[in-house]
Amino acid sequence: MKKVGVAILGLGVVGGGTYRILTDHAEFFRTTQHVDITVESVLEKNRERALALGVPAEKLAANIAEVVLDPDVNIIVECMGGVTDAKDYDLDALNAGKTVVTSNKELFCKYWHELERAAKQHNAGLFFGASCVGGVPVIRTLLDGLQSNEISSLVGVINGTTNYILTEMCERGIPYEAALAEAVARGYAEADPAADVEGYDAAYKLSILSSLAFHTKVPYSKVCREGITKVTAADIRNAHELGYTVKLLAVGKNTPAGIEVRVHPAFVAKGHPLASVGGSYNAVFITGDCVGDVMLYGKGAGDLPTGSAIVSDILYAATHTELHYATFKNTAAPAKDVKFVSDFESAYYLRMKVADEAGSLAKIAAVLSHGGISIERLMQRTDGDSAEVVLVTHVTHESAVANAVHKLTANGSAEVCSVLRVL
Amino acid sequence: MKKVGVAILGLGVVGGGTYRILTDHAEFFRTTQHVDITVESVLEKNRERALALGVPAEKLAANIAEVVLDPDVNIIVECMGGVTDAKDYDLDALNAGKTVVTSNKELFCKYWHELERAAKQHNAGLFFGASCVGGVPVIRTLLDGLQSNEISSLVGVINGTTNYILTEMCERGIPYEAALAEAVARGYAEADPAADVEGYDAAYKLSILSSLAFHTKVPYSKVCREGITKVTAADIRNAHELGYTVKLLAVGKNTPAGIEVRVHPAFVAKGHPLASVGGSYNAVFITGDCVGDVMLYGKGAGDLPTGSAIVSDILYAATHTELHYATFKNTAAPAKDVKFVSDFESAYYLRMKVADEAGSLAKIAAVLSHGGISIERLMQRTDGDSAEVVLVTHVTHESAVANAVHKLTANGSAEVCSVLRVL
Repeated sequence: MKKVGVAILGLGVVGGGTYRILTDHAEFFRTTQHVDITVESVLEKNRERALALGVPAEKLAANIAEVVLDPDVNIIVECMGGVTDAKDYDLDALNAGKTVVTSNKELFCKYWHELERAAKQHNAGLFFGASCVGGVPVIRTLLDGLQSNEISSLVGVINGTTNYILTEMCERGIPYEAALAEAVARGYAEADPAADVEGYDAAYKLSILSSLAFHTKVPYSKVCREGITKVTAADIRNAHELGYTVKLLAVGKNTPAGIEVRVHPAFVAKGHPLASVGGSYNAVFITGDCVGDVMLYGKGAGDLPTGSAIVSDILYAATHTELHYATFKNTAAPAKDVKFVSDFESAYYLRMKVADEAGSLAKIAAVLSHGGISIERLMQRTDGDSAEVVLVTHVTHESAVANAVHKLTANGSAEVCSVLRVL
Repeated sequence: MKKVGVAILGLGVVGGGTYRILTDHAEFFRTTQHVDITVESVLEKNRERALALGVPAEKLAANIAEVVLDPDVNIIVECMGGVTDAKDYDLDALNAGKTVVTSNKELFCKYWHELERAAKQHNAGLFFGASCVGGVPVIRTLLDGLQSNEISSLVGVINGTTNYILTEMCERGIPYEAALAEAVARGYAEADPAADVEGYDAAYKLSILSSLAFHTKVPYSKVCREGITKVTAADIRNAHELGYTVKLLAVGKNTPAGIEVRVHPAFVAKGHPLASVGGSYNAVFITGDCVGDVMLYGKGAGDLPTGSAIVSDILYAATHTELHYATFKNTAAPAKDVKFVSDFESAYYLRMKVADEAGSLAKIAAVLSHGGISIERLMQRTDGDSAEVVLVTHVTHESAVANAVHKLTANGSAEVCSVLRVL
C-alpha cells in the first residue's frame, strides 16, 4: 500500500482538526482509499497545545527546515494563518518539491501566482480546497464538476461570522452591536472582528472563487467591498416587512461588459435558496450555461469541517500522481482583454428621513426619476415632525443611485440613512 | 494540444444536449481545459433527428462495431437508455480499451461490476457522474470532495418528475391524478410514468449513491421502494397543517445495525433545507462525520443539465491519464460482513377513519401504546358519522407501525387510510 507522510504547520483550530481527522481515520483511509497516511511532523510554537492534542514529542519539529528536509514528508499542510511566515514556509516546501495543502485564503488570494510558479517549477502539487467555504467542496466542483459550463454568476454567503450576526439580527430583532458581542462571546467572531465584519474574509474567498469560475485571475484589489457594520435594526425590520432577509453576499458575475466582483450586505428575497442559509452555515449559488442553477450548502468554518476539506485535498494528492493546477494562466494579473466593472447593475433599497410636509415625496420622486431610477415599492411612515420613506428600486446602475443620493442630500429633500443592494 | 475524439451512442434528450455542448463549447474547452475535443462519430437509429441536430452525415455510424473500431474515437458516451443493447455496447467499448461515459442509471446500478471489471481489464476509464441528479456533481463530490468523511446518511430528492407532481399537489392542492396529467402534458413525465412515480428511478440512483457513500456495493434489490401513487390531497393538506411538505425521498443510512436504503414519500418539516427543493429541482443532503451537513442542489434532469455532467466527465477523462474506479471492491455483491436493515427507525404519519363514538380514540391509543409507539401530535376531525384521526408518532420501528396498523384494522377500531414516514 502506498505510504504518504504529512506535516502540519500550525496546530490551531484548523490544524488541530486536520490532525484529529488524519489520526482517527487512518484505518478508514487504508480501507477506502488504499493509502497509508501518517502525520510525520508538526510545526507548532505552542508545544503544550501540540502535546495536549496527542502529538508525540518526537514528531514536533524545531523549524521549517527540519520539516522540509524530512524525506518521510510528502505533503505539507499549512494552516498557520497570517501571510509573511506562511508564504515563506509554503515556498520553502514547494521549492523542496513537497506538495502543499493550504487553508490560508488571504495568502492564497494574494500570492497564488508565486506559489503556483514554484509548484510547477519543482513538480509539486498545490491544493487550496479548504481556503473557501470550509468543508463544502466548491473549489473541487468548479475544477472537476462544472468545468463543462461557462459560468455567468456566483453568489455566495461565504462568511460564517457575519451570517451568524445577521441571522440573529433578523430572527431576534437585536441591534448589530448586541449580535456582534454575542458572536464574540460564543467564539464565532474574533475579538478584533474587522476581517469578518468589514468583508475582507469574504473578499479573499471571492477573489479565489471568481478566478476559478471565470478562468482568469481576479485580483483581490478588484473586489468592491462593504461590511455589515452600518446595517441597522430598522433596515432588518423593513427587509422583513418587504419579504426579504439580509445577508452579506459575495457576488461574482461575468457579463458582456466585464467581470464584476463585490462583497456587501444585501436584501435577499425570502423565496431565494440563499435566504434560508442561516447561522454559521454558508452556501454558494452558481449559474452555468448548461447546468443552470446549482447551490452548494454546508458549514463554512470550524475545525472538522475545514479539516474535512484539507484531508480531502491530502487524499486527492495521495491518490493522484498527475499534478493539476488552476486552468488559467499562471500570472499575478488578469489577461489584458479582461475588463472589470465597478458601475454594476442592481436593484436598491433606500431608507431616508424627510420632513413631514406636502411635497416631500414629490421631490424624492423627481430626483429619482431624473436619474432614470424607477421605483418598484415604496412605504412611508410618519413619526412626529419627520417621516421615514423606504423604497426598493427596479434594477439600475450603482452610479445612478450614488448620484441620486448625493442630490437628495444636497438639495435637502431627504436625509438618506441606508442604501443596500437587492439580490 | 491534446486531441480527444468522442462518439455518442443515442441522440435523445441527453445525447442531443451532450452533442450541443461539445460542439458549441469546443473553443471554450481549448482555452480553459487545453484540450481539443471533437465529436467523431454518432450512433443514432433516427437519422433525421441526428441530421436535424447538425450532425454531418459522414459522422453517422452504421453500427457499434464501426464506432468501436474507429481509431479517432477515445471516449464513448452512452446515453441510449434501456439495458440490453446499452450493456453490450458499453462492454464492446470497454473491451476495445475505450473510455465509457454513461448517464444510464439502470444499467449502471445493475451491471456496475461487469462494466468495471471490463474497464480494469482493458485499462479504460468508466465514468457515471451523469447517472444521478443531472448536472449536480454529487458523484464527483462523494469521490473527490467528501472522501475524508465517514458518511452516515444521505437523503435526497432525486427524481424530478415526482417532485414536480408533489410540489404541484402541495402548492395548488390538486389531486395526484391531475398533477400527473399535467406533468405528462408538460413533458416532465413519460406517458408510462411507472419508472418515476413508483420510485424505480430514485431507487437506481440511491443504489449508486449509497454504494459510493458507504464504500460497499449496495444492490438495487436491497432498496425498500414505495411510490407516490397513494399520496392523497388529504395527506398533503394534513402535512401543510402540521408544518410539513411531502417529498419522495431516497434515504441511505449507515448505522451500527447496518445499511438501510429506502425510497418512499415522506413528510419533511418546512424548516429542513430539503423542504424548499421545489418543482423539477433535486437535492442531496449528506451528513459526514467531519464536514457535518452538506447539501447539493440543482436541476436533476434535462438535456443541458445532464449533458453538463456528461461533458464534465469527458473533460475529466480527457485531462487525466490516471484511471480511478470506485473505491470499494469490484464485485457484484456487498462485502460479507455488511448487514442491511429493513426494519428501520422513523417517525410516522397516520391518517385513519374511526366511528364517531365514545372510546374510539382510546382504542387507537391502546393499540399504539401496546406496540410501544408514542404519539407526538394528534388531530381529530368529525365528519357526519365518522371521524378522521391524524397523528404523528415519535421515532419507532417500521415493524411496530406495520403491526399496529394490522391490529387497528383487525380489531375494527380504525380504517387506516395512509401511512407515511416522517423525515
